[in-house]
Amino acid sequence: MSSSPQVQAPAPGIVFDTLQAYQRSVALVGAIDLDLFTAIADGNESISAIAARINASEKGTRVLCDFLTIMGFLVKQGGEYSLTPDSAAFLNRHSPAYMGTMANFLVNPRVAGMLENITAIIRHGGALPSDHGALEPENPIWVEFARSMAPMMQMPAELIAQMFAGSKPIHVLDISAGHGLYGIAFAKRNPNALVTGLDWANVLEVAKENAGKAGVSDRYSTIPGSAFEVDLGSGYDIILIPNFLHHFDAATNEKLLRKAHAALAQGGIAVTPDFIPNEDRISPPRDAMFSMQMLGTPSGDAYTYSELEKMFRNAGFARNEMRELAPVPQRLVVSYK
Amino acid sequence: MSSSPQVQAPAPGIVFDTLQAYQRSVALVGAIDLDLFTAIADGNESISAIAARINASEKGTRVLCDFLTIMGFLVKQGGEYSLTPDSAAFLNRHSPAYMGTMANFLVNPRVAGMLENITAIIRHGGALPSDHGALEPENPIWVEFARSMAPMMQMPAELIAQMFAGSKPIHVLDISAGHGLYGIAFAKRNPNALVTGLDWANVLEVAKENAGKAGVSDRYSTIPGSAFEVDLGSGYDIILIPNFLHHFDAATNEKLLRKAHAALAQGGIAVTPDFIPNEDRISPPRDAMFSMQMLGTPSGDAYTYSELEKMFRNAGFARNEMRELAPVPQRLVVSYK
Repeated sequence: MSSSPQVQAPAPGIVFDTLQAYQRSVALVGAIDLDLFTAIADGNESISAIAARINASEKGTRVLCDFLTIMGFLVKQGGEYSLTPDSAAFLNRHSPAYMGTMANFLVNPRVAGMLENITAIIRHGGALPSDHGALEPENPIWVEFARSMAPMMQMPAELIAQMFAGSKPIHVLDISAGHGLYGIAFAKRNPNALVTGLDWANVLEVAKENAGKAGVSDRYSTIPGSAFEVDLGSGYDIILIPNFLHHFDAATNEKLLRKAHAALAQGGIAVTPDFIPNEDRISPPRDAMFSMQMLGTPSGDAYTYSELEKMFRNAGFARNEMRELAPVPQRLVVSYK
Repeated sequence: MSSSPQVQAPAPGIVFDTLQAYQRSVALVGAIDLDLFTAIADGNESISAIAARINASEKGTRVLCDFLTIMGFLVKQGGEYSLTPDSAAFLNRHSPAYMGTMANFLVNPRVAGMLENITAIIRHGGALPSDHGALEPENPIWVEFARSMAPMMQMPAELIAQMFAGSKPIHVLDISAGHGLYGIAFAKRNPNALVTGLDWANVLEVAKENAGKAGVSDRYSTIPGSAFEVDLGSGYDIILIPNFLHHFDAATNEKLLRKAHAALAQGGIAVTPDFIPNEDRISPPRDAMFSMQMLGTPSGDAYTYSELEKMFRNAGFARNEMRELAPVPQRLVVSYK
């Protein structure tokens, strides 16, 4: 092999790679759909064994396994494949932390629509008026969300409960409970915690199922409806607002936060896990990039801490602080009444 | 901000990031479609100036610019954006190396189809029988290819001509000429080179246009039709086979290579730029990942050097060598009659 010619020029690789990036999502969706990670976890490590197990051609299996190896989901050695610690934890169906369910929620219905409309969405600065349905009452997308995304929320929910659940009698309100995991984690960790989940009635069925599985149904109650319209109750020690404010503009959020402030007991706190970019809006990458996904909603955004801090302050909260949830891909605002 | 809790656990970030990777392609397609890079090149550096120029909302512009910054296409400083050397060279419409045309060919028609069918494609080991149209005669997709992808081929074409064009009288055959740039680069560099481009008649119109623009029409002739069926002629010093073998299986390629071998003069060479993974099939990433794109064809692949070497040897070539084209994302097989 001869040595490379030396060319002092910008390299077009980044353009090519970025235009091909969608293949990364597609390949992972395919692997999850074929349950390839579970096949390997069960001891099928050669192309022929994996292909037989997932009922696929050897060529397709080889191309997929190599692609997954390049992306860091598999290790290839001597023609055999094995799982990485990450894929063993999150993509083997036998793992309690299995996250393969996220594939359909995050990818399938979105790619084509976002691709078709991206220029119009950027021009408009949000979802096109014809596409405002996701925030309508009882939209089944939030049932799908509650079922698909729960696995990714397990770890942050437990980290947050570990920070704030304590052991004294407390009453926790979980606004936009979804799968319910954030509130349920408090009930599991603190046997004296009462938890109330608020969401659309159809979504709360998922939260109630999860409360049942966690053995905390007797301390889990629900408020069905819109957080902007229902009576939240009062005297809560902690109000959880997970992944909710990013759907709305600042004025709308302040309305909700005023209600939350009024519903808290003296000394109570609001706890808000969300994607929160730094003030430069370009770091950390995962939090900052979330703003693109929110551009697909009517008026949502990935708010910086200073933007969130202002909303909470305008709503009457005395002070706020941000906490990291690493290695979980989110951060936390804690707001004191 | 308090310090992160220490959690010893696999991190789910890779799953989330990969499922979101399609947004990278979508955002770049949107930016190219809005001609955002040219707007910035022309001196619009604040959100408001860029938004006004591309006729888009400030919010959409801000989200897009930050996303592009995170991906490495822009630099953000003090709220103003500027181009990187790569985006200035390849994404500013005024640049002679502008590559924005690649967006539509590489992304638009493919994403939705590939996503919808990936599981079936992997099972089947190639394009579904209902999707074999790309290789049919005169398919207009190859005219689109010739027009869209030419900018990415300019640099490798020139590098290859620099290696092999010399200054003596030579006759070059460019098999699957497409845009014609590989052959045209020989004619430009060597005024004694005669070049013949072979492709479907509709595609050759693009090659002839490009030969005209390069001022070499008087030394550029064409053979319309399928490389597998037409008479190639004889006595060529160099036969170029750019990005062609990856569409077919080894047996089909050997048939073509036998014809090419017969059409070469004694001492002639075949020159084959293509995506060529190492024998491990997982490096270099860009070449190795190309196999996923080829899985979407009936029987194509990203062949390793040893696979290509065997095809050329079976077709009668005496010896082969591989050369690097870095920083261009491809490699080269040189095969001696």
